[in-house]
Amino acid sequence: MHGGAGTILKKNMTPEKEVAYRETMTKALQTGYDALKSGKSSLDAVEVAIHVLEDSPLFNAGKGAVFTHEGKNELDAAIMDGKSLKAGAIAGVTVIRNPISAARAVMEKSEHVMMAGKGAENFAKQAGLTLVDPSYFYTEERWKGLQQALKQDSMKTVLDHDKKAQRLGTLNPDFKFSTVGAVALDKAGNLAAGTSTGGMTNKRFNRIGDAPIIGAGTYANNATAGISGTGWGEFYIRTVLAHDLSAMMEYQNLSVQEASKRVIAKMGKLGGDGGLIALDKNGQVAMEFNTAGMYRGTVTEDGKITVDIYK
Amino acid sequence: MHGGAGTILKKNMTPEKEVAYRETMTKALQTGYDALKSGKSSLDAVEVAIHVLEDSPLFNAGKGAVFTHEGKNELDAAIMDGKSLKAGAIAGVTVIRNPISAARAVMEKSEHVMMAGKGAENFAKQAGLTLVDPSYFYTEERWKGLQQALKQDSMKTVLDHDKKAQRLGTLNPDFKFSTVGAVALDKAGNLAAGTSTGGMTNKRFNRIGDAPIIGAGTYANNATAGISGTGWGEFYIRTVLAHDLSAMMEYQNLSVQEASKRVIAKMGKLGGDGGLIALDKNGQVAMEFNTAGMYRGTVTEDGKITVDIYK
Repeated sequence: MHGGAGTILKKNMTPEKEVAYRETMTKALQTGYDALKSGKSSLDAVEVAIHVLEDSPLFNAGKGAVFTHEGKNELDAAIMDGKSLKAGAIAGVTVIRNPISAARAVMEKSEHVMMAGKGAENFAKQAGLTLVDPSYFYTEERWKGLQQALKQDSMKTVLDHDKKAQRLGTLNPDFKFSTVGAVALDKAGNLAAGTSTGGMTNKRFNRIGDAPIIGAGTYANNATAGISGTGWGEFYIRTVLAHDLSAMMEYQNLSVQEASKRVIAKMGKLGGDGGLIALDKNGQVAMEFNTAGMYRGTVTEDGKITVDIYK
Repeated sequence: MHGGAGTILKKNMTPEKEVAYRETMTKALQTGYDALKSGKSSLDAVEVAIHVLEDSPLFNAGKGAVFTHEGKNELDAAIMDGKSLKAGAIAGVTVIRNPISAARAVMEKSEHVMMAGKGAENFAKQAGLTLVDPSYFYTEERWKGLQQALKQDSMKTVLDHDKKAQRLGTLNPDFKFSTVGAVALDKAGNLAAGTSTGGMTNKRFNRIGDAPIIGAGTYANNATAGISGTGWGEFYIRTVLAHDLSAMMEYQNLSVQEASKRVIAKMGKLGGDGGLIALDKNGQVAMEFNTAGMYRGTVTEDGKITVDIYK
């Protein structure tokens, strides 16, 4: 799992906060592990593990999502099943408590792959998902983040992990969080991947990032890997990053680690930054990033949990 | 260029209509050719050629777009520059006369790749694009198509090129049109690709199809090809079709024709249908489809225009 890549530096982190991050990542990994152990599918594990991060105010997804320019929380998510290559995604929703579950409902209960805005919300309502008042997503820290972003640059959208923004020197140290994601492999050998995000602080124009774009921020294929990205979304879309990783494995026989390195390098060369997690059909894990840190963790078949933050 | 793939059968076509399609495709190709001849870029050629199809009521893009379940016209488009790998896309817009130009504005005048709905419209307004009243997109034929679709199935979204829908046997013969698209190669050796669509008749829930998804329905890369798809969008998204074609060329050294055949076969195997156009850096053209027909045409360096409709 990942909880976002960015300029996460030890010197900006309080010990209490670091503990909170580690504990929440651990809880999410344990939740996914328990689902798999009880015989549930990789899709189930991805979904319930992401719920833990979506329900936490620490991560930029669900509760804890950053604010748009207009002071709203607009959420994106996607999920993909590596066995059937079925996928579901939602973009720009404001009242769905757990966007990852809405993405799964799109995959399983509609003929579509992607829905946006009000339409996606109407669908989620019909599908019986938990809806909340938009105020549910308010957190003081994110609100302050928006105010700083607005003050800093009233014209230009600021990426919460943007190096240019960093250069401006006034960014809230908590801007760096991004997207959360999970990939899992179950007993039946099926891979799944999911990603959920609040996008960029101060985003405008109903911008859609890479998280809900199948092939960009989210992709799963039993023949190759399950992949979830976190970073400067525009570059993930332009490099079709998650699918490119899969294609390198499929067509060049690269390992998941080598393919991960190459796609992060390609994306970085264009000027982007961020990270990814990938898990192949043999349980090989890659966690690559070109930022200072990435909240990340793994749980192995025997239940061993590892969580890391810095490079 | 393509003007949509689907169950286009000679027996359902009047001679007058066939002439109108051929003439409009020819005009679009000539417009793109003239742009290239006058020294303009492949991006310019793609944009102005697509304008001709968007402005015609014959094609499901711009004027002529199909209606959603709610009786609206919601337009999607994307454009990509093979040299820089920059891209722009808009989804679910209702007041932008030429969606392909809005996609280009997103690429060139914003830091984003994709915008949706009202936000995209606000951006287009600020970027100085021509806005129209939503009634501009009304055509009697598409309205009748929606009424038939609603009558036929009030619960289930009908794809305008859906085989299942065909089996129901009541589809308007004009349902088959889909997306329009163009790919071009200019003197400087730069490839570009663009796609524009009204989506599916009777679509619901602000469904987003493949056309505005970079890597699914639209992709360009000078190292491989410019690609535009037209078909059952959900399958194009799930197979990341346009990028998969490019990856086969890049990583397996396949020709554009062979890669095109393979991605259409993969998509068909999952249950989808449709077609694509692809043009590589050497000017090699592929026009593959697994439907009865696809409006399609080419113009060569010396100005020779060819237009075809049936298999």
